[in-house]
Amino acid sequence: MRLRLELGYDGAGFSGWARQPGRRTVQGELETALGRVLRLESVSVTCAGRTDAGVHARGQVVHVDVPDTVSEAVADSALARRLNSALPVDVAVRDVAVAPAGFDARFSAIWRRYVYRICDQAHCLDPLQRGQVLAWRRPVSTTLMVDAAAGLLGEHDFAAYCRPREGASTVRTLLRLEPLRTKGRVEVTVVADAFCHHMVRALMGALVAVGEGRLPVEEPSRILAAGVRDPRVQVLPAHGLTLEEIGYPDDEQLTARAQQARARRGEPA
Amino acid sequence: MRLRLELGYDGAGFSGWARQPGRRTVQGELETALGRVLRLESVSVTCAGRTDAGVHARGQVVHVDVPDTVSEAVADSALARRLNSALPVDVAVRDVAVAPAGFDARFSAIWRRYVYRICDQAHCLDPLQRGQVLAWRRPVSTTLMVDAAAGLLGEHDFAAYCRPREGASTVRTLLRLEPLRTKGRVEVTVVADAFCHHMVRALMGALVAVGEGRLPVEEPSRILAAGVRDPRVQVLPAHGLTLEEIGYPDDEQLTARAQQARARRGEPA
Repeated sequence: MRLRLELGYDGAGFSGWARQPGRRTVQGELETALGRVLRLESVSVTCAGRTDAGVHARGQVVHVDVPDTVSEAVADSALARRLNSALPVDVAVRDVAVAPAGFDARFSAIWRRYVYRICDQAHCLDPLQRGQVLAWRRPVSTTLMVDAAAGLLGEHDFAAYCRPREGASTVRTLLRLEPLRTKGRVEVTVVADAFCHHMVRALMGALVAVGEGRLPVEEPSRILAAGVRDPRVQVLPAHGLTLEEIGYPDDEQLTARAQQARARRGEPA
Repeated sequence: MRLRLELGYDGAGFSGWARQPGRRTVQGELETALGRVLRLESVSVTCAGRTDAGVHARGQVVHVDVPDTVSEAVADSALARRLNSALPVDVAVRDVAVAPAGFDARFSAIWRRYVYRICDQAHCLDPLQRGQVLAWRRPVSTTLMVDAAAGLLGEHDFAAYCRPREGASTVRTLLRLEPLRTKGRVEVTVVADAFCHHMVRALMGALVAVGEGRLPVEEPSRILAAGVRDPRVQVLPAHGLTLEEIGYPDDEQLTARAQQARARRGEPA
């Protein structure tokens, strides 16, 4: 039986999502809590968006396969509460359900939505959100950022904005890249079918450079076309970034989508 | 010359607003930063809402009188930035300006707006906001809370909801008390001309007891009328509470309002 979990976490205290020996990670904490609550010796979870160290999540989605013997615990509506009691305060399970047939948290996903938050003036400073908003010393123009963003949308090889990984494709489809000034601060919504490593934070570095006037508006798309990393593009700090939501197709499309995504990224079905 | 400052803080690390020997307080940190930046030996600030230990603020307003010799520093638009560099990360000055004639941060204020935030189900848990939202074990009905709130509005002696202070009136005018479910969680907006000590958190304790079904809907207003503290009314924890905004009249009303407020609360003009 496969379960689908939705969770949020404060990335500040974690060495990212993926389990690593000797490090505190979200995957590690979640697998430990699941093992304890469901009384399983070993648990292995798969997530939709493997966030880096310091990156936060509100809408992370995870699947986990459990033996049918735990079905009683799952039917219990208090499972989310029991998991939250077993989890540390910086991770919370918001929802648990039996996954629909064909569901794969990673490969069934059709898009990932992140938001990067920046405060570039005294007026938007909010110490309550200092862990999730990048304080930036110089004012940025969202008008310039919007213009630069338009040139990055669509399917491209994002190698110029990715930390390369052996044998992995860097072709992605960027569906939305929308800088918006709201409540005085800048929020950039970024949606893609998937992201390669450091991609959101490198895109943010390019947009902020344009917003400040350090980089011409056309430069981020020229850098994209050149296909190599550019020293003028800074990878912005992790703490401004939050994984907000994962999109999935209708239930009958889940299996087909997973097969397609696996094939595309050169992963075994 | 009088300055008007607007500031926000994360209350978690403070023993409240008011300066106390040997304790870390917002007033203490702010006065130290002002002294350092403006090169003054002693600085004394007055705030609009003296928040308790653990209570947060986004829209706290403060005035401070400074010698005319610092006018140059004040004219400098970078003063807020310089103050923020001198302040710890959990306090931020959002705005600094020369105060209009007759302005008194405390006595010119016509209302204070607080919001108390509660998450009563797994779905609204957000570890990023765990320091500002009370996690409550049992689900509450905002419909019941709204009904109970209606009976508390207006001018009353709020002695039943206040920690008494020698010689101070507990008559206050409650202008808004609005529980609302938003993004899955419960946010209660509370606006009054002023608040006595513990008043918002005691009102929240009464509303939550009604929302849970532990207390009949009419009981909070009966308790108000009885005028004595009731053991069924819990003072809810500080960390769910944030001072959001202070209301002031038009500039020409500032002096009159301050005189009126001082007279009403038995304070010397």
